[in-house]
Amino acid sequence: MVDILHRIGVETPTPEKVYDALTTVDGLAGWWTDDTTGSGDVGGILQFRFLPGGFDMEVVELRPSERVVWRVVDGPEEWIGTTVDWNLRQDGDYTIVLFTHRGWKEPVEFMHHCSTKWGSYLMSLKSLVETGAGAPSPRDVRISDWH
Amino acid sequence: MVDILHRIGVETPTPEKVYDALTTVDGLAGWWTDDTTGSGDVGGILQFRFLPGGFDMEVVELRPSERVVWRVVDGPEEWIGTTVDWNLRQDGDYTIVLFTHRGWKEPVEFMHHCSTKWGSYLMSLKSLVETGAGAPSPRDVRISDWH
Repeated sequence: MVDILHRIGVETPTPEKVYDALTTVDGLAGWWTDDTTGSGDVGGILQFRFLPGGFDMEVVELRPSERVVWRVVDGPEEWIGTTVDWNLRQDGDYTIVLFTHRGWKEPVEFMHHCSTKWGSYLMSLKSLVETGAGAPSPRDVRISDWH
Repeated sequence: MVDILHRIGVETPTPEKVYDALTTVDGLAGWWTDDTTGSGDVGGILQFRFLPGGFDMEVVELRPSERVVWRVVDGPEEWIGTTVDWNLRQDGDYTIVLFTHRGWKEPVEFMHHCSTKWGSYLMSLKSLVETGAGAPSPRDVRISDWH
């Protein structure tokens, strides 16, 4: 099992706005993909759609302003059964986001792509909270021929 | 042991410019840090310096337009002894860059930071080759309080 790891710091006085951006459909649509539907409550399913396809995430755990855990229940084969874990803490002027997408079976080329792409979306999340505007799909940053 | 993985695609007709950006001091200064010195030849040591410190890389392997391998010989304790492995291949209009920074002892918080930061520097490399201008330190993209 191999994991994707990331860390950003969002300049904001409390983790609340970051937490909202991870747990509400409007917030998620602001940085990941315009085409976000479903429920961000525990036990809810969030549906994220992109041009080539999408992901369905079951919301497994919510600790306000501290932690959000999703399990991938539908999407690309390599993603199904993996876990996306968001941990938040306040450190002075910054909400620190520790991100892990864990449980990949093999470090395939698609995992390399997803790691870079997650980094880019985390910068979109940071921008959303700091400036009010993220870069969700389909206005996301292109990183390769795989988008 | 845990690894950082990334993948970008650089829109360019052959891998030559990407290879040059990984093996010459001028090229490396164009996307990673202005303060790059040393030798990019096999057995050479490349010195990369940033505001808080830097890295010394021994050039372990060079296969023109295919592969570049560095061993970290000085820098932050967590980096020493790790390996940075660049693999290039041409895929139509894109040079595909598969990046692995392998051999971290533990997935510490600093590793999360370095993963996101590498993703950001890979976008700087892509921009350098595609547009002629990267975003090397100290003009790099700030991702957190750790820069």
